Parts: sequence; C-alpha cells; structure tokens
Amino acid sequence: MKSLEAICYSNFTLKILNQLLLPSEIVYEDCSTSEKAFHAIKLMKVRGAPAIAITAALALSCEAYSLSFSNSKEFAEFILSKLNYLCQSRPTAVNLFHMADSAKHLINRCMQENASLKTTQETFYSFAKNLFIKDIETNKAIGFHGLKAIKSFKNKNIKILTHCNTGSLATAGYGTALGVIRALHAENCLEKVFATETRPYNQGSRLTAFELVHEKIPATLITDSMASFAMKTFGIDAVIVGADRVAANGDTANKIGTYQLAVAANFHKIPFFVASPSTSIDLKTQKGEDIHIEQRPKIEMISLNEKLLAPMEIDGWNPSFDVTPHKLISGIITEYGVIYPDSHNSFNMTSFLKNGENFS
Amino acid sequence: MKSLEAICYSNFTLKILNQLLLPSEIVYEDCSTSEKAFHAIKLMKVRGAPAIAITAALALSCEAYSLSFSNSKEFAEFILSKLNYLCQSRPTAVNLFHMADSAKHLINRCMQENASLKTTQETFYSFAKNLFIKDIETNKAIGFHGLKAIKSFKNKNIKILTHCNTGSLATAGYGTALGVIRALHAENCLEKVFATETRPYNQGSRLTAFELVHEKIPATLITDSMASFAMKTFGIDAVIVGADRVAANGDTANKIGTYQLAVAANFHKIPFFVASPSTSIDLKTQKGEDIHIEQRPKIEMISLNEKLLAPMEIDGWNPSFDVTPHKLISGIITEYGVIYPDSHNSFNMTSFLKNGENFS
Repeated sequence: MKSLEAICYSNFTLKILNQLLLPSEIVYEDCSTSEKAFHAIKLMKVRGAPAIAITAALALSCEAYSLSFSNSKEFAEFILSKLNYLCQSRPTAVNLFHMADSAKHLINRCMQENASLKTTQETFYSFAKNLFIKDIETNKAIGFHGLKAIKSFKNKNIKILTHCNTGSLATAGYGTALGVIRALHAENCLEKVFATETRPYNQGSRLTAFELVHEKIPATLITDSMASFAMKTFGIDAVIVGADRVAANGDTANKIGTYQLAVAANFHKIPFFVASPSTSIDLKTQKGEDIHIEQRPKIEMISLNEKLLAPMEIDGWNPSFDVTPHKLISGIITEYGVIYPDSHNSFNMTSFLKNGENFS
Repeated sequence: MKSLEAICYSNFTLKILNQLLLPSEIVYEDCSTSEKAFHAIKLMKVRGAPAIAITAALALSCEAYSLSFSNSKEFAEFILSKLNYLCQSRPTAVNLFHMADSAKHLINRCMQENASLKTTQETFYSFAKNLFIKDIETNKAIGFHGLKAIKSFKNKNIKILTHCNTGSLATAGYGTALGVIRALHAENCLEKVFATETRPYNQGSRLTAFELVHEKIPATLITDSMASFAMKTFGIDAVIVGADRVAANGDTANKIGTYQLAVAANFHKIPFFVASPSTSIDLKTQKGEDIHIEQRPKIEMISLNEKLLAPMEIDGWNPSFDVTPHKLISGIITEYGVIYPDSHNSFNMTSFLKNGENFS
C-alpha cells in the first residue's frame, strides 16, 4: 500500500495536497511558484517543519526553471531574493531557514567561483531535489533509531501517545515521530497509538487519524485534554512528538500542547521523546526563550468550517507552538542516533551534531 | 444587567435554554415533562451537575401538576417511578441522585404519615421549587468563600484559569467556579480569566465565553492544550473548576480535562480549587476509583456542526469526565466554607459536612 503524499514533485512540476480540506477531500494543488508556496505555507495547506522547507525549495526551483535568465548573477539574485521572501511565511520552524541558508551558501559559492548560468542553475535544482529525496532517508533512519530506543525498555504491546501530525503529510514521506511509530508497527511491537486531536487546527484528527486509518495502524483518537487521563487509564509506554526547532540546549519548540504533554508525561513517569531530523536543530538558538513563537489569528481557534465556536467578542490567545524545556525530554531521536541528556540532565546538541555528521 | 438563565421556571411551566445551539442561537424549549427532561439531559441541551438535578425535579413537578391522581399512593408511585427513569439519563453527576434520594425520602415519609394527596403533592412541588431557589443562594455562598480563599494569598490583579462551564448556564444562576470568578470581579480584584474551550463539547468556548462576554468579565479563550503554556507565560494565580461528584476522600470527578489541569497546576505550583455545592459531595462513594465515568459516543468527538473532523473509521475514546485525585486539590469550596486537606494531605468530607450542615 502506498503512503499518503503531501508533496508530489516530478520534472519541475510541484503539486501539494491541500491539507486544510482533509479528511473530507483529497485535492492536490499546483505549487510551482514561490508565491504559491508562500501562501500554501502561511495558510497551512502544507505544514510540518520538513515539508515546509522542501515545498519552498522545490517551488522556487520550478519557478526559476520556467524563467529565462541572461547570466548567473541574475539567476543568483532572483533566488536569493525569493528565499528571503519565502522565509517570511512562517517564523517558528527552523528547517525553512536552514534550507535558505544552505541554498544561499551554495549560490554564493557559485558566484565566487564565477560558475556559469547552467552550473549555478543545476546546483540549485539538485539541492532542492536532494532535500526531497534525502528527507525520506532521514526519516527512515529516525524510525530505526527510535525503534531501538523504545525497544531498549519495552519489547512488545507498546502503547505510544503522539501529538499533531508528523507523518507522511508533514515530511517528504515516512514521517518523524510517526516514522518511529511506523517502524514499531512494522516490527509487530506496537499495541496502539493514542493520537491527540491537536487543537485548534486538528492536525491529529484530520491528518494523523487519516494516515493511521490509511496505514491500518491500530489507533485511538483522543482530545488533547484526555492525554493525562489516558496515561493513567491505559498505561502509555512513551510519548513521541516532532519538533519545529530544537535549541542548542535541547529546549524544543513544537506544536502548541507539546509542553503540556511533557508535563503530563513527567507526572506519570513516562519517557518523553522528541523525533527530529538534524535540520530542525538550531545551534544558533541557545535556549527555548530565544525562539520566536508564531501567533496565529484568533479566528482560527474560534471558528471551524465557517461556523463560530465562540462569540466573536471574546479575546483569544492562539500561539501556534510552545517550548518544552529540555529537563522534561528523555531523548531526542535524530537520523544520527538518539541524544540523551548528560548526568546534569543537559543536552549538548553542538557536540552531538559534530559527531553525528561525522557518522553520516 | 441580567445574568443568562439556563432554567426558566414559573407556575408549573419549565423552559430550558438549548445549550447545544449556543453561541449562535438563543432558543428556549419547553421542558415540562419528565420525558423532555430525560432527553434534554441526555443530549446535553441542559448540563452542569446542579442544573441537571433542578431541571429533572422541576420537569417532573410540571408533569405531575398537569395530571389527575385519585389518591396520594397513586401520586407517590408516579413520582417514584419517574425519578428512577430520570436517574438513567446521565450517570456521573451525583446531584441528580441526591435529588432523587431526597425526593423519595419525602414521598415515603408522606406515605408513612398517611398524608393526603394534596399534602403529598405540595410537599413534592415545594421541594422541587426550593431546589431551584436554594441553588442560587448556595452559589453566592460558594462565591463568598472562594473569594476569601483566593484573597488570602493574593489581593489584586488576580488571574484565574477555569475549565468547562460552571456559570449561570450550569446552575440555577450565579455559578459555582464561575461564581467565585464573578465575586472576584465584583470586588475589582480580578485581572483576567483564562477559559479553556473544553473539548469535545466546547462548553468553554460556546458557554463560558458567552457568559463572560455577556457579563463583561475580562477573559481570554484558550484551547485545552494551551493551559500549561498559559500558566508559564502569564503566571496564573489559581485554577478553579467545578465538580460533578466529590468522593468522601476528596477525589473529584469533573469534566474531562480537569485532571490534566490539576497535573499542570501541580507542576507550576499553582493552587487548584474545586468549587462544589454540598449536593455534589457523595459520601457513599469512598474514592475516585468508585465513580462511574460516563462514556459518550465517538461521533460527538469527531464531528462538529455535522461535519467530520476525523475519518469515520478511526477508533475514539470519549469519557465525559475524569477523576482528579485529592492529592492534587488545594481546597474544596462549598457553601459552608472551604475544606482544606489535613496534615496528611487528606480530605475528610464526612466530618466537614457534618459540621458544615450545622452551620447552615
């Protein structure tokens, strides 16, 4: 059975699955310009830290391919300016900024080396396409390391609680936290996933539940408010969530509600794992407090399917993410392996990444 | 300004506000028979532990008044059988069972004393009407004691987080937890209420937000998943929730999500109060584990306004309530005063009620 695909790319044509219409409608929309990508990301038609970065890079690649440039400088200027524009779509996930930094670095190197237009173009196009291809490999490696980490303390009938959507729909495929769950299921050691509906955008009920039904992975949907009672009632073995940005000290920004799950896991003495590709780790951000948390419009919280859930006059607070302090995190699962806290309960992401990249 | 009214009773005519239609429509429906009350309670057109008991008693009173009985025995049998029927509407809130027990006790006493039909009827009718009248007095007393309890540790700019709806719409008027908030606001010491939307039935966004806007009490709506992040970000001073049933040891069943708020408050060292009329205290239930938790249909969680939020095939768990262990409760605010845990962190509800009732 084929996994769901959020991003369909082939030969400079990019289509994305409009995730706002799920689970009722499966509609793919053309996303072959940076402007389309900007709006698709901002409106959350495509979401998930890795998927956002890949969509932005591929859309820009498609747009550039459709245009004519007289020289490499003109091409470089076009790419650099569009990258800046794309980075303004959503502020919290770091993958988009990492992608832009890497692309700028490549383009600038081409300029320094006086590379031809063709070489510069091919450099950027390969970079974008490789992001897409490499993401699936990265996720499979995360799945492998996560599986090992979980199996080190429980071997079968494992019950996992997860939040938001971190599956095929949030990545190029396979998923991060949901990739670990997929790996556990493939090894027949998963009893059940508990998926939170993930208000206010319902990525859990609309997307994760949809993926889990599609993949026939045994799952139960709960509201976010039921997580603690589920931990107590069913004996959850581990919580695994994704990440939008991991700071150098391990503090992790992820979908709003993640922090509360970490608090609940801590109270119930349940291991709490973050599954994150190394591209979500931001060594430039020292700690959680330095992460800019996106605020979404109130209307996204108080309306659903164009009907009001609350009186329009009520004030609303709608942060899209929260920060889980590293003290509440048992381990961070990356494609290079799992980072565990040291004896002072601290994470050293810098030294891990240095070693990790040497392994890769 | 007049408070919202969930229950409108006058001269053997009962109308209830259909709370399923709020906040978009304000529709009062006739509820003058036990069958109408049964369905209104089961479908949650009327909800809130005190409001359920009052609606059941008044509806039965209206129905009985419209019928002819040849003698007191026939009347008594009718009332007793309808009370049993009404008790099957919802299983968790104890107020309904307390009401039925008290009514049965009165009716049986009339029978033992060979009371006339008229006396028996008047006894029951006064009982039902008094429940309604007394509930507002009870709530005002809860508000008074709650205000004192909160002011004992903070005097102004108080920020309260609350869950579900415990206001005018859940009671005969004024409210329990929301009554305490109302009292704080009246004394100008409330800075703001944070109200959780309270999934899956959105009593917070549909009802509490509606009441707070109506009463011009400064308030911010958040999703249930944001509570911990709000505690950390804004410095909440206390959490106050209602109760559907308080066991003899202080363990409290209340709207699903309450337990998670208690866990979050505990982590952030924030006092966690339960506001509960003595009629929600069930001395026959020793501890939380003995409380029957109502399970609601999955469809109530995965659909909203007749649209699906999740694929129909996903399994769902939808407990309507959870149990907060007494160790996580800082105090239980009743109409007789606040019960605090003893030096072993235990609540002795039996001895408190005995003394409390002597005060009343």
